[in-house]
Amino acid sequence: MAEEEVKLHGAWGSPFSKRVEFALKLKGIHYHYIEEEVLTKNKSPELLKYNPVHKKIPVLLHKGRPIAESQVILEYIDETWKGYPILPQEPYERATARFWARFIDEKCWPSVWSSFSEGKKEEAIENLKLLEKELEGKKFFGGEKIGFVDIVANFIAYWVPLIEEATGKQLLGEEFPALCRWKDEYVSSAVIKEHLPSRDKLVAHFRARFPSN
Amino acid sequence: MAEEEVKLHGAWGSPFSKRVEFALKLKGIHYHYIEEEVLTKNKSPELLKYNPVHKKIPVLLHKGRPIAESQVILEYIDETWKGYPILPQEPYERATARFWARFIDEKCWPSVWSSFSEGKKEEAIENLKLLEKELEGKKFFGGEKIGFVDIVANFIAYWVPLIEEATGKQLLGEEFPALCRWKDEYVSSAVIKEHLPSRDKLVAHFRARFPSN
Repeated sequence: MAEEEVKLHGAWGSPFSKRVEFALKLKGIHYHYIEEEVLTKNKSPELLKYNPVHKKIPVLLHKGRPIAESQVILEYIDETWKGYPILPQEPYERATARFWARFIDEKCWPSVWSSFSEGKKEEAIENLKLLEKELEGKKFFGGEKIGFVDIVANFIAYWVPLIEEATGKQLLGEEFPALCRWKDEYVSSAVIKEHLPSRDKLVAHFRARFPSN
Repeated sequence: MAEEEVKLHGAWGSPFSKRVEFALKLKGIHYHYIEEEVLTKNKSPELLKYNPVHKKIPVLLHKGRPIAESQVILEYIDETWKGYPILPQEPYERATARFWARFIDEKCWPSVWSSFSEGKKEEAIENLKLLEKELEGKKFFGGEKIGFVDIVANFIAYWVPLIEEATGKQLLGEEFPALCRWKDEYVSSAVIKEHLPSRDKLVAHFRARFPSN
């Protein structure tokens, strides 16, 4: 019954979709997963119905009600199921986590992506340096355990190294000791490791996406 | 003493800065306001210190600790001072409010701005239509009283009509009856009305910003 009421429309290789899966897994919530075809133009009628504004995955359905936008979904999950809190409890720490999560989506993600697609590394390096500084002296962004910012930053931990492998271009070099240590901790932690997408499939996907340039 | 501990670094004409002021005023929190010069390149040492990542207003200081990014600040204010809740209490309604607030910043704001600066109205109209639909049958986005989405949408209520006046270009026409009624309700509600920036100064500012094109 509990399995019936939580559904996730996602895509196997999407770090945004995986954010939601990791949060549900960390909290031990059972869900029904529906794979959406995102690489073609054929959006499913369900996706268009549940997310008519952005027409994008991930969409979480809980008791039939749809929620879109991965960070909004993470907040919803954290407010709905209390086990394994994802956000800190104290308001200032919550604000700090939200600040960095926004920074990751608004600044890091586009700059890291264009560092591979357009070869402009400067902005990505500058943004990653800010994250490196934020992480210093901590095991995870969330402190001793994986939290909101770690989950949002997941593409840096797993996807970026695979794009590096596919393209032969390094972004996360030795000037990022804290981020490099963190990504290893993150991808080898039990719940995350178990639910990462296939590295071979992703590397093949990125080889096709970023033909040698 | 309470006045001493809350400080806002803002700019008189910024809708982002006013979001924070409106939230503090609605909750009846006293604060010390510091005007930052944002139209020149001279950022104050305080602003650079308190928001080194984005170097932008608004920045709220509470007990000496800085918080940046207006939506992050609004959430912090709502979690710290419970009087006059800004976000709804129920998780699904909170998710819905956060969804629309993100939509406003990520889609509406840039498209509305470029409709005036570049003359491309289509995307702005399309986005405003989605807001129009969300507002139908409600007094405010927040229901019977001003809430999170109303505060975030404030630039549509007050700033857009002044840009229309300054440029002679209409965006909020009769195809937006709900938004037009809402903006009148919003700008004439007691707390908001009292703290809106000078319309003459703003119109003059926008005349200079958007020379007839």
